[in-house]
Amino acid sequence: MTIPDPATRSSSGYSAWRLITEELRGEISDSRLRPGDRLPTERSIAERYGVNRHTARQAIAALAEDGLIESRRGSGTFITGESVLVHRIGLRTRMVRSLGDEESARSSGRVLDSAIEAAPEEVARRLGLTDGEVVRIESTRSAGDQPISVGTHWFAADRLPDIADSLRRTGSITAALRAHGIDDYLRASTVVGARHATATEAELLAIRPGAIVLVAEALDTLPDGTPLQYLVTRFAAQRVRLDIEPPHAD
Amino acid sequence: MTIPDPATRSSSGYSAWRLITEELRGEISDSRLRPGDRLPTERSIAERYGVNRHTARQAIAALAEDGLIESRRGSGTFITGESVLVHRIGLRTRMVRSLGDEESARSSGRVLDSAIEAAPEEVARRLGLTDGEVVRIESTRSAGDQPISVGTHWFAADRLPDIADSLRRTGSITAALRAHGIDDYLRASTVVGARHATATEAELLAIRPGAIVLVAEALDTLPDGTPLQYLVTRFAAQRVRLDIEPPHAD
Repeated sequence: MTIPDPATRSSSGYSAWRLITEELRGEISDSRLRPGDRLPTERSIAERYGVNRHTARQAIAALAEDGLIESRRGSGTFITGESVLVHRIGLRTRMVRSLGDEESARSSGRVLDSAIEAAPEEVARRLGLTDGEVVRIESTRSAGDQPISVGTHWFAADRLPDIADSLRRTGSITAALRAHGIDDYLRASTVVGARHATATEAELLAIRPGAIVLVAEALDTLPDGTPLQYLVTRFAAQRVRLDIEPPHAD
Repeated sequence: MTIPDPATRSSSGYSAWRLITEELRGEISDSRLRPGDRLPTERSIAERYGVNRHTARQAIAALAEDGLIESRRGSGTFITGESVLVHRIGLRTRMVRSLGDEESARSSGRVLDSAIEAAPEEVARRLGLTDGEVVRIESTRSAGDQPISVGTHWFAADRLPDIADSLRRTGSITAALRAHGIDDYLRASTVVGARHATATEAELLAIRPGAIVLVAEALDTLPDGTPLQYLVTRFAAQRVRLDIEPPHAD
């Protein structure tokens, strides 16, 4: 990669140090730099990208701010254990099964808030409600001590008025649904986008305001196609990538 | 759509303004609001969703930040030419079929550059090469006059040494492969993440430096499982959402 003289870029709003940060972040995300690896020195980064050391220092500082690297006195700067998790999106969306074995073993969900309220128009449309109320649940999920996602879930209130309490008690959507006699459900659609985190999302995900979230909008249905749950999950993009289960060949 | 008092939601997940932003983004995406249409006023948005004008203003500001609307002095706020495309990720990855009919009709790909070179370690691993060379192709894809993605494709050079020329000639991966006797191939894996665009990506995608790209890493195989193509596609997140084809039920 060759970066023009930083002075010539200042008008574009994207400074050289930020470009270098993103380049290095990409190397960490792609596992070209792995946890425990030593980060190239300030001097070698400056040489590699043809910038001065002040610029290289800024790039390194931004990585440190995001918790991706850490300095160890006397021995250098290393990629931290801030791992990039791969979250599986598949047909059966049971939370535990949607995570890898290792991930699920140390992953935990928590209900932050819930309410029964009038269905927003879009939610009513997705759940096939002509009118009526929905249960809205706000949740977070962590792996180890790292928050990985925040979710907003909507269920038809007449079908599952107590789903929030069941979820609080069981800690899992699958277990909560089973407590209401629903043993199987399927992922009918998932649409993935990305945007900047809101202040609240940044706080809950322990990322800096304006960091990126992957947004997955999904509809789960009963095996007969009846809409069951509409949910919008925001994943901290600096920690999570979504692994899309391939459809089976016909 | 009725949204509770924003004050009661501020401690939890999905704030009222964000829900309104997503609702309006959905209307733009569904073409209920089209390029050139006037956005409803702050006052009418506030009334429609039952929120105060500050909340409506936040929702509008978020749309502006993503380039979906623009203010014209003295005449109001309008939907820009930026539409939100939904790009399908499914089992059969033929580019034309992966886009909706309307989208495919006006979508076109272009080869920017290609080279035969030693396989980077990760690429060799994905393509199952122990050593040897790869054909690397850099491409872009536009819908109408809007760039939607940039892609980097790798193929084993011993299998398909002339694939870049075929792609330049035909304009489609599917047609290029067919010219080499490959009539069918399948998407074996897709992993989706998001990050800030590099300067080059921003230029090719006509987005501001630092805007967000969705990054899809994918492996295509022959029906017998032989790796065929490894590719990394970067989509302008402000214009594209990825629609994940659900796996078929067993």
